[in-house]
Amino acid sequence: MRFRSLSALALAVAASPALADEGMWQPHQLPELESVLKQKGLEIDPKNISKLTEFPMNAVISLGGCTASFVSPKGLVVTNHHCAYGSIQYNSSADNNILENGFLAKKPEQELPAAPGSRVYVTEQVTNVTDKVNAQLNDDMDGNTRYKAIEKAEKSLVAECEKDVGYRCNVYTFHGGLEYYLIKALEIKDVRLVYNPAMGIGKYGGDIDNWMWPRHTGDYSFYRAYVSKDGQPAEYSEDNVPFTPDSYLKVSAKGVKEGDFVMVTGYPGRTNRYRTASEVAHQFTHVYPTAKAYREQSIDIIKAQAPEGSQARIAYESTLAGLANYAKNYGGMIDSYQNTDMQTRKDALAQKLATWIKADSARQSRYGDTLTQLNELVKQSQATSELDLILGYMGRSAMLSSAQRLYRLANEKQLPDAEREPGYQQRDQARFEARMTSLSRRYDDTVDSAILAHFIDLYAQLPQAQRIASLDKALGIDKGYDSEAMRQRIDSWYAKTELNEQQARIDWMNKSVSEFKQSDDPFLAIAVATYDDMRSREKAKKALSGELAKVRPQYMAAIIAFYQEQGLPVYADANSTLRVTYGTVKGYSPKDALTYTPFTTLEGIAQKYTGEAPFDAPKKQMQLIADKQYGEYQMSSLGSVPVNFLSTVDTTGGNSGSPTLNGKAELVGLLFDGVSESIIGDWDYDPNLNRSIHVDTRYMLWVMEHVDNADNLLAEMDIVR
Amino acid sequence: MRFRSLSALALAVAASPALADEGMWQPHQLPELESVLKQKGLEIDPKNISKLTEFPMNAVISLGGCTASFVSPKGLVVTNHHCAYGSIQYNSSADNNILENGFLAKKPEQELPAAPGSRVYVTEQVTNVTDKVNAQLNDDMDGNTRYKAIEKAEKSLVAECEKDVGYRCNVYTFHGGLEYYLIKALEIKDVRLVYNPAMGIGKYGGDIDNWMWPRHTGDYSFYRAYVSKDGQPAEYSEDNVPFTPDSYLKVSAKGVKEGDFVMVTGYPGRTNRYRTASEVAHQFTHVYPTAKAYREQSIDIIKAQAPEGSQARIAYESTLAGLANYAKNYGGMIDSYQNTDMQTRKDALAQKLATWIKADSARQSRYGDTLTQLNELVKQSQATSELDLILGYMGRSAMLSSAQRLYRLANEKQLPDAEREPGYQQRDQARFEARMTSLSRRYDDTVDSAILAHFIDLYAQLPQAQRIASLDKALGIDKGYDSEAMRQRIDSWYAKTELNEQQARIDWMNKSVSEFKQSDDPFLAIAVATYDDMRSREKAKKALSGELAKVRPQYMAAIIAFYQEQGLPVYADANSTLRVTYGTVKGYSPKDALTYTPFTTLEGIAQKYTGEAPFDAPKKQMQLIADKQYGEYQMSSLGSVPVNFLSTVDTTGGNSGSPTLNGKAELVGLLFDGVSESIIGDWDYDPNLNRSIHVDTRYMLWVMEHVDNADNLLAEMDIVR
Repeated sequence: MRFRSLSALALAVAASPALADEGMWQPHQLPELESVLKQKGLEIDPKNISKLTEFPMNAVISLGGCTASFVSPKGLVVTNHHCAYGSIQYNSSADNNILENGFLAKKPEQELPAAPGSRVYVTEQVTNVTDKVNAQLNDDMDGNTRYKAIEKAEKSLVAECEKDVGYRCNVYTFHGGLEYYLIKALEIKDVRLVYNPAMGIGKYGGDIDNWMWPRHTGDYSFYRAYVSKDGQPAEYSEDNVPFTPDSYLKVSAKGVKEGDFVMVTGYPGRTNRYRTASEVAHQFTHVYPTAKAYREQSIDIIKAQAPEGSQARIAYESTLAGLANYAKNYGGMIDSYQNTDMQTRKDALAQKLATWIKADSARQSRYGDTLTQLNELVKQSQATSELDLILGYMGRSAMLSSAQRLYRLANEKQLPDAEREPGYQQRDQARFEARMTSLSRRYDDTVDSAILAHFIDLYAQLPQAQRIASLDKALGIDKGYDSEAMRQRIDSWYAKTELNEQQARIDWMNKSVSEFKQSDDPFLAIAVATYDDMRSREKAKKALSGELAKVRPQYMAAIIAFYQEQGLPVYADANSTLRVTYGTVKGYSPKDALTYTPFTTLEGIAQKYTGEAPFDAPKKQMQLIADKQYGEYQMSSLGSVPVNFLSTVDTTGGNSGSPTLNGKAELVGLLFDGVSESIIGDWDYDPNLNRSIHVDTRYMLWVMEHVDNADNLLAEMDIVR
Repeated sequence: MRFRSLSALALAVAASPALADEGMWQPHQLPELESVLKQKGLEIDPKNISKLTEFPMNAVISLGGCTASFVSPKGLVVTNHHCAYGSIQYNSSADNNILENGFLAKKPEQELPAAPGSRVYVTEQVTNVTDKVNAQLNDDMDGNTRYKAIEKAEKSLVAECEKDVGYRCNVYTFHGGLEYYLIKALEIKDVRLVYNPAMGIGKYGGDIDNWMWPRHTGDYSFYRAYVSKDGQPAEYSEDNVPFTPDSYLKVSAKGVKEGDFVMVTGYPGRTNRYRTASEVAHQFTHVYPTAKAYREQSIDIIKAQAPEGSQARIAYESTLAGLANYAKNYGGMIDSYQNTDMQTRKDALAQKLATWIKADSARQSRYGDTLTQLNELVKQSQATSELDLILGYMGRSAMLSSAQRLYRLANEKQLPDAEREPGYQQRDQARFEARMTSLSRRYDDTVDSAILAHFIDLYAQLPQAQRIASLDKALGIDKGYDSEAMRQRIDSWYAKTELNEQQARIDWMNKSVSEFKQSDDPFLAIAVATYDDMRSREKAKKALSGELAKVRPQYMAAIIAFYQEQGLPVYADANSTLRVTYGTVKGYSPKDALTYTPFTTLEGIAQKYTGEAPFDAPKKQMQLIADKQYGEYQMSSLGSVPVNFLSTVDTTGGNSGSPTLNGKAELVGLLFDGVSESIIGDWDYDPNLNRSIHVDTRYMLWVMEHVDNADNLLAEMDIVR
């Protein structure tokens, strides 16, 4: 089956510029958007942006989960404070609390190793491999065969690509399988922390202000990428030297003003703009409410077991931040869902699409069964969602999940490398080990056991038919459930296990399946006892996934053709690949008689200041604000230094740390959040409410110059004054 | 002692129009403000506004505590829903819940008597009687003598004035005694409820939205004033006829837009713009925090004792609203105080004033001791504030306060009428009786006793030296305190007392002191036993008040002279007399990057709608909004019907229900609230944050025409379309 390529569709956009702020575009689509981009304010040639090995795209990098950019010829990297949070925390201790107080390496030798596993990925090549993948598939394959065939094709493409040492390759799926792209990225393994502002700047407002406007967060930090002396990616070594990027971004000290063009390049994680009405309903009425509750319960448990000020609390700060971040996110999504007509529109679209298909015999023969088939598969995948959610959160117990992952590794190792599950291949070993190592810094027995106990409680409440027999037996609840007895059993496991020791985990990475089977470690015993059932579950899911990989592309082809007829733009859902989005600096009005203007000021920091976290800006900063020491960073129309600003760009998680560029591709800000009213943007773009939040470079430079005296970095960067 | 009259000072204002939105001006001052008013947008002659017996001022009336205005030649009165709340509640029952559902008299005979004691006062004459009062005073008088001399002078002026039957007269103190004015008002006693919208319109947003913007409250209701057939004020009678006012306001269906001139005429209750630094500090760090806590405790008690849906809850709805209203008010004031530099400025003013006085020998001789004397008196008055507050809130027990008031009445009656305490004179009898009558509708034994018990608990915790010996003994706590035993004692009192019967209270109004002394009613026994101590307390307070009445005018004279030198305007603090304030329709920005625009819309009602009180707009209204049935009331720039709007006018409690007039003196709104950021406006006017909230007449007319079909009233009014 072949479907129209996307580049033809993108032409439709230029014809409807009013819609143009929506969209996370693949770089190769940009030349087609030239007239819109020029009209909006892009000054450089859009064709440049489509070339990954040229400025500015080769300055944009992935940290895996976050985006960043090079801002000096010596590999200096700027990203969000919350993206470097793990590394700041990793280097922080009660004695030397750089998370709280900030950190600045005045000299290269003071730079600190980032958290284990930290990487900088520089995308160098994107290849459309749809034909190569499809060549391995045929319409007669069942779900599981299809799933495996796709996986095999992807692995083979990846293996071929990674023959080039120092690179990491991945095949990414677009439009649910309508297209596949092989992406090749240089993998820099020696990443060092160079500078982070104090928590009272970098996380000012904390979770209270998260997703909120007005916002006053100095959400930026600096890394540096290091390579071996011969310029190759290498593990950390004192002999390594700073990486020399092919290009880097100039940093604007002039900034933007309301109405200005801005463009964000980065790695948005995942959007669901093309999900069916039934998928939307299930997600918003079941998955999000449940997940939100599980996150809030986890937060309560952690806070109760790890009191403020304790070493355990420091260990879990990052986990707490992550839990809270998405609990709030889900809450915002549920609110938006309830207060907007999104479901109605999704239902209407389903109806219209069905009508549109029926109205034409060619469409009928092409897509006639697609909707029914897709809905049936979706229904199947939703059937186990209660158990899926509970097992997912139960897996946040590091002991249980480590045991399961370690035993999985032993099993996978019995297979030839190419046949192993992704994540358990030779190429994954370093990351696997890093994860087993860094776990110690974020772990506490008491917290971990309390979380496990809580989710086992919930699991035990599921009807027996929904539970997993071997898990029931391994947990000792197959004959009935007593919560108190369970807790005692769990306590005894934690007293006995060795997996809470870093070296033990590393050692188990190299043991055989039979050694696992002989082990009396309670968590390994659970992993062994439930292994087959868990694999069956996984296999069933993969089969479903294989079926979906056949039907979803058909559905997307129908959707694309349907939209194309209406002249509406089509971009693929976000999938952690490099995208470009553009828009303008603009406020919004979320409520009757209430308008948010697009810039906050230093004075707003003082307005929120309480002296207590998260509203505890450093005293020095407060004094500078009181003295109106704006330096050259004052924005005249504002009468102060701008701190954060809003724009209409279309972003999501993963875009964090993305460079915000002006029409000349100079860095004017760092994308770090969206407003609460646009959280639902992952599912639905509303031009009136979709706003991204950026740190203004003027604020970053102001803090660097006046608060933190980061003169060495200011001198190193190319600042446009 | 003589001080410059105010009219000369007012000239200073015209010279500094930038400051002109601040000020609650006495009507006679307005001609001096002519150039400012014209420049701002007043189209009628300012001299007209200064004449109380001419349009528009003779259309503006007081309800005692609220303001209202005539809007038809047949005595139709418009005021706030919350001002008519007591009367709506009085006529409401579980069976015929007009509070919940609204009420419209389609014919005159359907109009309902307002709550007992309801009055309409039409101010007809204001006379400066400063000379007459001062003629009775001399510098050698001690505090008590002075207090009595002032009271006597005022009473005599009032008695002389009230010889004119049907009028109510009062002497009002300006600038703490620098000036006295005798105000003569026609007292209309037959007031009837004509129309109120449903609670879901008239109190939309309820306490949650109280003091808040954006606001969507249809806070209006209609009364009608009735007089005897010969045109004289008379008690309610079926034979009475609608009052014919000398003039009435036209109602604008065109409304105002952003930047337009508006003027509010009404009876602001009390401001404290000229209090000393020490008075401000005491009020904000002691009185408001304590009173707020006492109100919140009272609310909790009432809600616990009178569950939602009960008859008792209906009886206490109005009390709850009042308690909540000011608990929120005090909270807002405390917040503003803590977040602004008001205390610093008051301290600085005290310093500057002292310096200014010292700098000149004439000033030195005139005001040399004033500051010291005033501060000493203020300190004395603050000494008893803990006890004062507790006794004040204890007095919210209707049984205790009724007993005290009734016994006081018996004692006062032994004196010649002219020598009696104000409130206990012959002229006060009707109001006294009305209060004793209407109490039944707002009373419940269980609630009343719980409130009494709570404040006795607090009283008993005061150090003995601060308590009142006779009260301790009467409460049975002079030998020690046991809260549980106290509660049982209180229960026995409520079981025994007859004062919870309306007729019993009325009967006691005519009994003698000795009959009280012989009574075994437990509350009367407390009133008798504590009477002398309470009078001593009162006497000491009056003596202090007399001293203050001597020193405060000197202080105000100094303040006025000090400000005059700087060309700053001087108006007297609000004192429930008729004032005029003017300003413009304008939004505000209370926080960094957040702007409130000055109009809300029908769509904002739908945004807030939950279907549950207080966000339970009638279904019919919701449908009209969904259908965009704006009729002629749409404001084109808004694309909808404006609901509420903001302006810079300078108002406070008592202004509720005040007509908001455009430059032609047409009614464009009803003042009903201020925004939370300007609650502190009673103490300090901030042009950036001081905003009043008005119901837009376009919304009122839209509801009347489209939701409530009040065609009879629309036909009766003179609507400018």
